[in-house]
Amino acid sequence: MSGNPQYTLAELAERFGLEAHGDPATSVDGVGTLATATPNQFTFLSNPKYTSQLADSQAGIVVLNADALPLRRGAALVAKDPYVAYAKIAALFERHADAPHGIHVSAVVAPSARVHPTASVGPCCVIEDGAVIEEGVVLGPHCAIGPGCVVGANSRLVGRVTLVIRVTLGKRVLIHPGAVIGADGFGIAFDRDRWVKLPQLGGVRIGDDCEIGANTTIDRGALEDTVLEEDVRLDNQIQIAHNVHIGAHTAMAGCSAVAGSAKIGRYCLIGGNAGILGHLELADRVTITAKSLVTASIREPGEYSSGSPLQENRLWRRNAARMKHLDEYARRLAALEKDKGQ
Amino acid sequence: MSGNPQYTLAELAERFGLEAHGDPATSVDGVGTLATATPNQFTFLSNPKYTSQLADSQAGIVVLNADALPLRRGAALVAKDPYVAYAKIAALFERHADAPHGIHVSAVVAPSARVHPTASVGPCCVIEDGAVIEEGVVLGPHCAIGPGCVVGANSRLVGRVTLVIRVTLGKRVLIHPGAVIGADGFGIAFDRDRWVKLPQLGGVRIGDDCEIGANTTIDRGALEDTVLEEDVRLDNQIQIAHNVHIGAHTAMAGCSAVAGSAKIGRYCLIGGNAGILGHLELADRVTITAKSLVTASIREPGEYSSGSPLQENRLWRRNAARMKHLDEYARRLAALEKDKGQ
Amino acid sequence: MSGNPQYTLAELAERFGLEAHGDPATSVDGVGTLATATPNQFTFLSNPKYTSQLADSQAGIVVLNADALPLRRGAALVAKDPYVAYAKIAALFERHADAPHGIHVSAVVAPSARVHPTASVGPCCVIEDGAVIEEGVVLGPHCAIGPGCVVGANSRLVGRVTLVIRVTLGKRVLIHPGAVIGADGFGIAFDRDRWVKLPQLGGVRIGDDCEIGANTTIDRGALEDTVLEEDVRLDNQIQIAHNVHIGAHTAMAGCSAVAGSAKIGRYCLIGGNAGILGHLELADRVTITAKSLVTASIREPGEYSSGSPLQENRLWRRNAARMKHLDEYARRLAALEKDKGQ
Repeated sequence: MSGNPQYTLAELAERFGLEAHGDPATSVDGVGTLATATPNQFTFLSNPKYTSQLADSQAGIVVLNADALPLRRGAALVAKDPYVAYAKIAALFERHADAPHGIHVSAVVAPSARVHPTASVGPCCVIEDGAVIEEGVVLGPHCAIGPGCVVGANSRLVGRVTLVIRVTLGKRVLIHPGAVIGADGFGIAFDRDRWVKLPQLGGVRIGDDCEIGANTTIDRGALEDTVLEEDVRLDNQIQIAHNVHIGAHTAMAGCSAVAGSAKIGRYCLIGGNAGILGHLELADRVTITAKSLVTASIREPGEYSSGSPLQENRLWRRNAARMKHLDEYARRLAALEKDKGQ
Repeated sequence: MSGNPQYTLAELAERFGLEAHGDPATSVDGVGTLATATPNQFTFLSNPKYTSQLADSQAGIVVLNADALPLRRGAALVAKDPYVAYAKIAALFERHADAPHGIHVSAVVAPSARVHPTASVGPCCVIEDGAVIEEGVVLGPHCAIGPGCVVGANSRLVGRVTLVIRVTLGKRVLIHPGAVIGADGFGIAFDRDRWVKLPQLGGVRIGDDCEIGANTTIDRGALEDTVLEEDVRLDNQIQIAHNVHIGAHTAMAGCSAVAGSAKIGRYCLIGGNAGILGHLELADRVTITAKSLVTASIREPGEYSSGSPLQENRLWRRNAARMKHLDEYARRLAALEKDKGQ
Repeated sequence: MSGNPQYTLAELAERFGLEAHGDPATSVDGVGTLATATPNQFTFLSNPKYTSQLADSQAGIVVLNADALPLRRGAALVAKDPYVAYAKIAALFERHADAPHGIHVSAVVAPSARVHPTASVGPCCVIEDGAVIEEGVVLGPHCAIGPGCVVGANSRLVGRVTLVIRVTLGKRVLIHPGAVIGADGFGIAFDRDRWVKLPQLGGVRIGDDCEIGANTTIDRGALEDTVLEEDVRLDNQIQIAHNVHIGAHTAMAGCSAVAGSAKIGRYCLIGGNAGILGHLELADRVTITAKSLVTASIREPGEYSSGSPLQENRLWRRNAARMKHLDEYARRLAALEKDKGQ
């Protein structure tokens, strides 16, 4: 981390509107954890379970909330939400290699594509007919931008991202390697004895500030578009089927999946490996816990779950065998109660 | 959609053997939904829940079944299965950019590979020793065709598809980006204190007319081949382990998985994120609902499920805690019944 | 398989320290199953359910345990663990095309990267600033090695593997196509009405002899590194979140996932599509069965499960509906018992 930029306590306080305590000239040039940060590093305390580490932390500057301040001996910044403040400050220490402007000699760009002169097109990228790469875009190695696709200003496709066809990305979209946006939706109809494929004539529209994880897939719509509104955050290996609509600021954890034409509200939180069946609607501010399956629309905000608890296999086997007879048990229970009542 | 081909009601009726109603000269050059289609677009009514939109639809032509015909004011085509008829007609309006014949200058083709002159090999493709690319094949950008692999006539690998080794594709196979076919099966043996790898000496055989979704993986066999019979349809992010055998016309939804050496019948339907354990057999015409886990062979056609229902987290927690004691409850219930009987 | 190396019974017995029975000159040049192997092929008997095939097997040599020996008519090798012995012997018949030393003309290698002269860099690979490729490494087509990443000696990246940034691989690491190592961890903080991204400043360290499956993703750490110790074996489509630590010799089956900062012990076995929530700890030698969800730390070795059993959908529906009322049933059961006691 040597050669990093340096920031003083005073500078950070002013830049992020935080209250400073301690020597204003204290300076940091990197980030660490409470336990590992050195005197020239910056860290944060957000989760109360780490409060015990605060007194001994060697970190040069700690961002924390007012309650924790008395326990801190060195320089500190007080924030209402130390985690958010940390996120913003730590971004100062993230260094992307400056992508060179222009098109790498090994990239293949169709004559009808438009690449802004401030954009960077990496090695072995392929940009097809009529695609548009706007200002400040960075395409890492092995990206493929299909016919007519648009990559909005200052978006970054880290590498090996495929936009198949009729995909439009907003501004500042970040996509990680292996993601496939705009592949055919899974539309098939059964014709007597075999499958007939439904052409997938729609596209995909991704709003500003969305992030899309590694190896995540977002299919294009059958007739209308698959849509992610602004600031949607998708982790790795998520599957978004055709004609799904995801509201702004919704975040989905890894390996979750949404089936065709489902509509997810705004500010929803979808847990890891959760599933949402097709054609359902989820209201705004719905939370689904990990590995749950949503089989009906959800009209009210709140937290929802399915699944059974983990046990030692020996015990779980016994209980699971009983699950097959719950209906019978409930009837027998009711019969006993009826008998008693008589 | 301008510049699209135009079709009249009379032409469509004849071409697809459907009964026409209305002005035979009514023409369409694109596709929309019942709600959005314009007078020069074609649409369909299949799901009864949209019947209420029929009377007001501005679509130039609607394909529907005989029951719905009286509600339609404009031109219509009557089909026994309007969804299948729609699939076939809509395909007329799907335009793939004509792939140029021949090998892109940036592709790397081994001297011993055979590429048919009518095939199209896209930018940055890599074709290794002894691979065969048959007539009419289209390889989009970034495909890698490993040693000795065969891509059957008129197959299309949309882009960034990897066939690792000993993979044979039938005719008209369609594979979406990110799919990996023929990687090592996951075969390891525990030798005292560490793992020993089992060499994966088999291959993969994919039948005619199969479709394989984005980022789906199909491993090659350990000794014999992993096999998909004809017309198998796999959605995105599906995992097919080594030596699996999938019968013709089976369709699997996104994120489902089949463990090693399982044998799935013909005309099966596997729901999203469903799992099938290794070495099991599923009969023909078995349906597995989403997120279910199959832990024993299934000998009879039918629909099968596992899982627990979604509830508000607060309620779910209470019920889930009880699942850990089902065996005990069942015993206590039986004890009460016995007492009563005495 | 013609042109393969040939091995005699005597050679194999000596090389692997096994007891030989039958004509020491019996020779084999390939591998088959008990049912299919020909007299010039080698096979094994490990699973007792195949014992009935032994007497009729045409295989030239069978490796088996002492108990099965009397049933074998031809040449045999006796091993304590025939499966492990098979794995080692079969490896003799696996032929990787010899990768040519050096850098393919279509690869793009930054001037500051170091590629050992015995390494093989395949077509369309991209190696960025400061990356190090050690001796004997093979990079198949379309690999991208990000800035400063290190690929340890004799590792093999089969093709289309992306190491994003700050990734270090040990020796003899094997990675299958589509894997993405070192993408951003999924770290976001909610700031009043929208998400703020947390920079992911850590890396990924992968130990010697690890294997990583096709389309598996391993994110880099937020502050410290994501770590796989030696001999960890990951199947396809696994998701490893940031700051996860996986102990040596642990094996995970396809589509399983581990959330951020979880710590998995040594010699664990994680079943297919199992999930482990964030910040948990699993002791050494913990087995999790397929599709289970781990929601609390596990301190004791053993086998653990969650989930409900598969049934015909008609029956499952009735029982699943009852799961929503388990808490009520348990109370009613207790009430009946109390009544009886009075």
